[in-house]
Amino acid sequence: MAIEMEPIGFVHTEAEKVPIHWRFSDLEGTLTIEDKYLEGLRDIKPGQEIVVLFHFDRSPAFSPNFLVQTPPHMNEAFGVFSICSPRRPNPIGLSVVEVLKVEGPVLYVKGIDMYDGTPILDIKPFIKEKEQGDA
Amino acid sequence: MAIEMEPIGFVHTEAEKVPIHWRFSDLEGTLTIEDKYLEGLRDIKPGQEIVVLFHFDRSPAFSPNFLVQTPPHMNEAFGVFSICSPRRPNPIGLSVVEVLKVEGPVLYVKGIDMYDGTPILDIKPFIKEKEQGDA
Repeated sequence: MAIEMEPIGFVHTEAEKVPIHWRFSDLEGTLTIEDKYLEGLRDIKPGQEIVVLFHFDRSPAFSPNFLVQTPPHMNEAFGVFSICSPRRPNPIGLSVVEVLKVEGPVLYVKGIDMYDGTPILDIKPFIKEKEQGDA
Repeated sequence: MAIEMEPIGFVHTEAEKVPIHWRFSDLEGTLTIEDKYLEGLRDIKPGQEIVVLFHFDRSPAFSPNFLVQTPPHMNEAFGVFSICSPRRPNPIGLSVVEVLKVEGPVLYVKGIDMYDGTPILDIKPFIKEKEQGDA
């Protein structure tokens, strides 16, 4: 029962080394989305934080060895579902970046922690809090 | 260049109608993860908020009609990448739920907005803020 995804675009950065996590990153780069999705970007504005889901396309295949891992910046091991390691059962990454500028299908962003050429799977609004209401 | 994913488990809820978004939801249910991933859950504790990525398995195939949509609880249309609609190029959903209890591979959670039987793709820590530091 495989679920198939296709890239909607690609990350570009000129950095040779990227920060290990978006929460430590000020690195700038671009998200170039396919022209056919251009209209879907129309409400993304400078200053917004957005969620980017992407494919960890350079990760090794998952194995039981990766169920518990010690992140590179920590001294302690954690279950894979409590950390952001690229070695996970489904290699989907999640980063939050700040939009600096939008030019057609190209989003200039800050906070990159993906490698150059990383396939993007989705962009979503970044929602931090619950709301009171009855919707 | 299709990217293949497999469910790591499934959402269960007895509600016939689910809230339209996790930020409005107090609905309780369970996330039942496959036994082979049990060790990866070891650091998930009651009280934590976790990100759940899942497959919108009942969404229609994406079409250009869905590039701009009016969410059911709004009076305004938005580009698909600025809303959480299940009708999106790659049908991946993101919800934040609160962990109530962990029993082996079953997470009891609050804040469900997925249908019963929804395939789960990943669980990640919920990180809201940037950090100062040089890691």
